[in-house]
Amino acid sequence: MQSYNQKDTISAISTPIGEGAISIVRLSGKDAISIADTIFSKDIQNLKSKTAALGNILDTDKKAVDSAVLIVYRAPNSFTGEDIVEIQCHGGRLITQKVFEITLLAGARASLAGEFTMRAFLNKKIDLTQAEAIQDLISAKNSLAMKAAKNQLEGHLSKKIKEFQKKIVEIVAFIEANLDFPEEDLQDASKNTLVENLSQISKDIQKLVDTFEDGKVLKEGLSLCIVGAVNVGKSSLMNAILKKDRAIVTNISGTTRDVLKEDLKLNEMLYQLIDTAGIRKASNVIEKEGIKRSKKELKDADITLLVLDSSRKLNEEDRQIFEKLDSKKTIAIWNKIDLLEPKVIEPTVVEPTVVEPKSLDSKVETKEKIDFENVVKISAKKREGLTALYSMIEKLTFKSKISTNEIIITQKRHKIALIDSLKYLDKAINDLKNDISHEFIAVDLKSSLLELSKIIGFDITEDILTSIFSNFCIGK
Amino acid sequence: MQSYNQKDTISAISTPIGEGAISIVRLSGKDAISIADTIFSKDIQNLKSKTAALGNILDTDKKAVDSAVLIVYRAPNSFTGEDIVEIQCHGGRLITQKVFEITLLAGARASLAGEFTMRAFLNKKIDLTQAEAIQDLISAKNSLAMKAAKNQLEGHLSKKIKEFQKKIVEIVAFIEANLDFPEEDLQDASKNTLVENLSQISKDIQKLVDTFEDGKVLKEGLSLCIVGAVNVGKSSLMNAILKKDRAIVTNISGTTRDVLKEDLKLNEMLYQLIDTAGIRKASNVIEKEGIKRSKKELKDADITLLVLDSSRKLNEEDRQIFEKLDSKKTIAIWNKIDLLEPKVIEPTVVEPTVVEPKSLDSKVETKEKIDFENVVKISAKKREGLTALYSMIEKLTFKSKISTNEIIITQKRHKIALIDSLKYLDKAINDLKNDISHEFIAVDLKSSLLELSKIIGFDITEDILTSIFSNFCIGK
Repeated sequence: MQSYNQKDTISAISTPIGEGAISIVRLSGKDAISIADTIFSKDIQNLKSKTAALGNILDTDKKAVDSAVLIVYRAPNSFTGEDIVEIQCHGGRLITQKVFEITLLAGARASLAGEFTMRAFLNKKIDLTQAEAIQDLISAKNSLAMKAAKNQLEGHLSKKIKEFQKKIVEIVAFIEANLDFPEEDLQDASKNTLVENLSQISKDIQKLVDTFEDGKVLKEGLSLCIVGAVNVGKSSLMNAILKKDRAIVTNISGTTRDVLKEDLKLNEMLYQLIDTAGIRKASNVIEKEGIKRSKKELKDADITLLVLDSSRKLNEEDRQIFEKLDSKKTIAIWNKIDLLEPKVIEPTVVEPTVVEPKSLDSKVETKEKIDFENVVKISAKKREGLTALYSMIEKLTFKSKISTNEIIITQKRHKIALIDSLKYLDKAINDLKNDISHEFIAVDLKSSLLELSKIIGFDITEDILTSIFSNFCIGK
Repeated sequence: MQSYNQKDTISAISTPIGEGAISIVRLSGKDAISIADTIFSKDIQNLKSKTAALGNILDTDKKAVDSAVLIVYRAPNSFTGEDIVEIQCHGGRLITQKVFEITLLAGARASLAGEFTMRAFLNKKIDLTQAEAIQDLISAKNSLAMKAAKNQLEGHLSKKIKEFQKKIVEIVAFIEANLDFPEEDLQDASKNTLVENLSQISKDIQKLVDTFEDGKVLKEGLSLCIVGAVNVGKSSLMNAILKKDRAIVTNISGTTRDVLKEDLKLNEMLYQLIDTAGIRKASNVIEKEGIKRSKKELKDADITLLVLDSSRKLNEEDRQIFEKLDSKKTIAIWNKIDLLEPKVIEPTVVEPTVVEPKSLDSKVETKEKIDFENVVKISAKKREGLTALYSMIEKLTFKSKISTNEIIITQKRHKIALIDSLKYLDKAINDLKNDISHEFIAVDLKSSLLELSKIIGFDITEDILTSIFSNFCIGK
């Protein structure tokens, strides 16, 4: 592994790779300004922080390879906390690469992944959650994820973690203060208060842990798996949702053999829509393989869209599929309602408008009822009932109602640290209830604090402890 | 067509699209600073030119969407000559798009293609050749093209054009000065000098026109088409050059059916290497189609690599292919020299080193001689003789010896304007020789000047004329 030697001055192409008007090559480190100075046509040694200079980038033979704008950020007032020089050159692949190479020849080292952010962290310009938020912000796939990342970048998660830490530290301080007098047991009243306070903290941490599933959804999106017996209209549904002819639709059973996947955006959320081959007895090898793959997709799916044919009675194949499904994450879709007799006369449907008659359900009746929590009636062919389907998908997407102001954890690392912290916390609560020696309780609480520190990356508990104890009178 | 309204303040994502640490959204126009001010958390109205400020980009609801660095460039000291604000946000696709949209909601218009550069031109910050050089620099595919573009960006081409213009203008001035005295014919001596001078300018312009073919090569690269009879080792040669197994090689005739294309870089130059199906009587439909395509590629190729089997006599198929080739752009390659008896004992060849024994040609003798200007002997299988082949390719690549300091035209537009300018110039020379009335000659020379002006984009001849005539005494 290459080492993250902090003494080196590092260089990287900081803009996306490709063709554009401008690219940025960025230097950070103690020699950033002097390296930039040697490859630039103008003297920038005395350039004020946060100011730009226009000149030429010079090759090793002192020939100009590109005109460029240099911007200097002097330590500690820069992203990394070190001297930074940004070189804005023309945004071609080759020219950007050339300027980057020139910085290396002049003494910089190619930065490793995340090394700028790592230095920002090591120089305490940002904490770990903020560092992670930068990557989340850059790779955000929808605006909710973007806002969650921005929240985290602003330090909202860190603030919450620090609140937990502060409350626990106060309790540790109280317990440790009483350690000096081991013969004096805690009053029942204070013991109850301690248990109560710790339990509240435990509940709050658990609540934060629970946001992880939504955070994961925000970051990665959800998979929507379309399943159903042969010829119920699975591929027609996929095409209707995607508003294009992705899947080949015929009335021949088993037309779809491959598992088809498409990205889908509904109300800013990202989904992966998966059309499967029908799950049934296969007549040949290719179909068998298709069915095997469908079963795997079904198992992994976040939400299952079960398609049923409303124009016929349920059959053995339908029932076999039912059995495999988790009803909590399934939406039962009665398709082909256009083939049913409506109770009232409907206006003619003109494609491709999505028609959403109010209380559609009341107007058509399927041949059977089924016992699923989430049921919609649609006509994939006529694009009816899709809006109702979309709201049902949305309802199943988030466990809690996601608000952009809520703090959501999106990193598995955070979840693990929170759960580990909870373990120690809950052990401490239990021990407290059972009058176990306070030394042990204090140790558990400190372990709990340490786990929380891992999220932020700095061990701030010492600071808090010091500040608390400094309020104690001397000799105590 | 959308209009390039110069009064609008324009906005664009100026860095390549993708994921990176930083992206830039750039505003240019009279409202650039006030628009940026409304969407930024800090007051930048009074920010000095070329200085940066750190803050948050605010959405329409005044919520921060990203932290950003703003850099202000005040008119006229900016790229476009207008006020420019650069917003450096985090380099994600979505976040960059979001910041861009916010600038539009705040009153900017999405810039059209090249609109920033167009404004730089309209505000006389750069001339047309420099504007074109920016695009060439960004899309340069090799370092020679990059250097040529940088030369042009620095104004070397414009300077050359202006030199031509100045010389012609001086002659026009001389002729026009004599127009006032139509009865006085030019002395033979001055006439000869004029013809001489104009002919020299004509020669120099022609020389510049001739650089276009090399300029085109620099920009676009060349195609290298491998042809030859069946089983001479065309695909083996392709694999040897590419140093990988791109083409499927067997000893079955007609293994290659498709036309295979691969990019190749030799000494910084870009080539497209094309492996063709053998051109012969096809035994089936797929082969027939392959051969048809091969013929088309062969016709369009810049350089043809004719592969011959040195271990057998030339046959009818070889000869049929010969006839189709332009010997000036063909390299005849005797392949399979490993199958020939060497005159002296060679050291064992260890793959994959390219072995280049000195005067390889003298040591092995092919069964036949052929009458081509460019001939090499190789063993694709043992990777022998390739360096000699590469130098021969390089020799055929450029008409003239390309030096990075030479001025090369790379735009067809320049070539056309130069040729048009030449037409008028040569007509003027001819008319001068034939003692045609000087009025006509002056008109032709002015037309010639106008064509040259088209290259730079500004009509500078008026300026030159004024400066010349101002040196004349009054009344003349």
